[in-house]
Amino acid sequence: MQPELLHFAHRFDAVSGSAIREIFKVIAQPGMISFAGGNPSLAALPDQQVSDLAVKVLAENGKAILQYGATEGYPAFVESLHSYASDMLGGPVPAVLPVTGSTQAMDLLCKAFIDPGDVILVENPSFLGNLQCMKLYQANIIPVESDDEGLLISDLEQKVLEHHPKMLYTIPTFQNPTGRTLSLLRRKEIAALAARYHFIVAEDDPYRDLRYWGESLPTIKSFDQEGWVVFLGSFSKIISPGMRVGFIAGDPTIIRKCTVGKQSTDLHTANLTQAIVDQFLRQNLLPDHIRQICDDYRSKLSAMMGHLESFPAGVRFTRPEGGLFIWVELPEELDALKLLQQAIAGKVAYVPGTHFFVNGGHSNTLRLNFSNSTLEQIDTGMAILRELVAAAL
Amino acid sequence: MQPELLHFAHRFDAVSGSAIREIFKVIAQPGMISFAGGNPSLAALPDQQVSDLAVKVLAENGKAILQYGATEGYPAFVESLHSYASDMLGGPVPAVLPVTGSTQAMDLLCKAFIDPGDVILVENPSFLGNLQCMKLYQANIIPVESDDEGLLISDLEQKVLEHHPKMLYTIPTFQNPTGRTLSLLRRKEIAALAARYHFIVAEDDPYRDLRYWGESLPTIKSFDQEGWVVFLGSFSKIISPGMRVGFIAGDPTIIRKCTVGKQSTDLHTANLTQAIVDQFLRQNLLPDHIRQICDDYRSKLSAMMGHLESFPAGVRFTRPEGGLFIWVELPEELDALKLLQQAIAGKVAYVPGTHFFVNGGHSNTLRLNFSNSTLEQIDTGMAILRELVAAAL
Repeated sequence: MQPELLHFAHRFDAVSGSAIREIFKVIAQPGMISFAGGNPSLAALPDQQVSDLAVKVLAENGKAILQYGATEGYPAFVESLHSYASDMLGGPVPAVLPVTGSTQAMDLLCKAFIDPGDVILVENPSFLGNLQCMKLYQANIIPVESDDEGLLISDLEQKVLEHHPKMLYTIPTFQNPTGRTLSLLRRKEIAALAARYHFIVAEDDPYRDLRYWGESLPTIKSFDQEGWVVFLGSFSKIISPGMRVGFIAGDPTIIRKCTVGKQSTDLHTANLTQAIVDQFLRQNLLPDHIRQICDDYRSKLSAMMGHLESFPAGVRFTRPEGGLFIWVELPEELDALKLLQQAIAGKVAYVPGTHFFVNGGHSNTLRLNFSNSTLEQIDTGMAILRELVAAAL
Repeated sequence: MQPELLHFAHRFDAVSGSAIREIFKVIAQPGMISFAGGNPSLAALPDQQVSDLAVKVLAENGKAILQYGATEGYPAFVESLHSYASDMLGGPVPAVLPVTGSTQAMDLLCKAFIDPGDVILVENPSFLGNLQCMKLYQANIIPVESDDEGLLISDLEQKVLEHHPKMLYTIPTFQNPTGRTLSLLRRKEIAALAARYHFIVAEDDPYRDLRYWGESLPTIKSFDQEGWVVFLGSFSKIISPGMRVGFIAGDPTIIRKCTVGKQSTDLHTANLTQAIVDQFLRQNLLPDHIRQICDDYRSKLSAMMGHLESFPAGVRFTRPEGGLFIWVELPEELDALKLLQQAIAGKVAYVPGTHFFVNGGHSNTLRLNFSNSTLEQIDTGMAILRELVAAAL
């Protein structure tokens, strides 16, 4: 068969696959220092604990775990998740749905709400994976301006009035890719705008527990009186991304629609991984584990910011209080895509910032991840990057 | 918020949730004998084996299993799956993709190919879950006539010429819900029609290893020279449905499109469950396990067919050589939906056949499952059903 005989659906017309995931393949060479990706440190992945918990849950409830489960979730996990989400969101949560990683949360929300041409407002830059998801639902993606305190409310309201969005997608805490955190005041304002103008807020908050300095901020959802805010939670950064367990929390009518969508998406999330995460919650294993992760990542973030201080004048970068990423703006004449070729030749990798922008451009930007490197790799890799930038100026 | 303020996507206009999964909730009462569902027998679920294998794979490769994986699949599993699928499909398979249960295989195929209004041809009746999936992609679902040897080729060709379908969806072996098996000759003819008229055949074959009598038939895919047939495989019936591991096998261009779709659907299938299924393949544990399952299910199917022989005259039923289901046609004046209320009151459940038909109707039909009941439950439950039917005539 000639491939041109295949007529794929039009939702793929503007989508060719994740640029980041293609970069991952190029940089998966031995000896590469990778500041690309958003992987947890290997030390942060609790393999022995997961093994012990797998044995425990399979001994106690193995037949139910291996049998078909409910789309609504593994019952014990739904119970513990309800309590966990209520603590996180600052009050009783009307409904929760376990999902196959928070990637699926976004897919189900788009499935529930987005017809082709519907408007989704997004931070610009934003998380590439979910931008691709929105494109596959043929959404009209409209960027909203941000500053160091996150989304600019004036621009958001103007775009709402102009475009009548179905949804705002935001990563309020230690945003991907910028590391920025939405201020308390703006969190309140966004919840109020959603209630006034009737649009869904998809609050994607996978990094909130990875805070190394400063005070935790309440979620946008905690200011939501009417149910317009849907919270997307993840255990990828605090237990394991490979287990693919996340959740959606919010209004019961919305959660019900997502549940019906999930029936024919993957029927249910694997019971075994749900049961293991349930044990982390039930045995209250997360606080200690998160403290260890944060101690490790704090020193790495400090080290990387320290190196950036010594970069040539004109290099600007964010100073996040947590999360996994630092956002770097090189002097305008530099091209981070071209620089990446030289960096890879020198065995250092990052993600060029242009991929995260709705309409590309911003070729002088890049994203750095620190969690998945050792302090030694950060020292070596950042020295190489500094020299490359200096030589390019 | 008033729920009517929520504007859900139009793909839900004709979808309200799986009728079967709602029935499941009603019948989840203690003491109920359930011939509904398509659950494996609890005895068939290898909980101890899965526990041992989980410990093994986490000890050997725990960090990689808990880290982000490739959308293309857990590498060891992709390797063993390739060899497994090649054996099953009667020759080298160009590409495979592990998925989160074969439910996701159908979702990704529809995502890859189906624009609203595109035609999918289906057996009638067919598997409810995948009919719902097609509806959520706003496909135009056109039924094709069948007889005891499966799809009628003359009707299929006529519908192809009339409707120019993007896809044919078929369950060729021990079909859900009828238990029918597509004959060898028709398998060849379908592969030839797909090549002539350029439509995708989604060959969904989760029951093929559950054969209790007779000779295994080659897949439609094995007669496919050009790549139009995509094979949907599942480990739900032969290892565990709760683990959610299935696969798609076929043309590399199609698999690539499904992979890009999967990037923003759930990023990847849980590595842990992929790694466990990989061990079943690598250690060649399936043949013995399947033999045990088949011995158990054979006696249950025999028993249920035996009871049906003694039902009142005018009751017809299929005599499958394998799978999980028997299809029953009551005399036309009986209504299986109404009868279900009485059956549930008598603590026996089944699924009314009308739910499986593209346009409803056929209210005198019903589907019986035997795998998830004991022989004693089959004796008791079938005696109750026989009396109900006799009394209704």
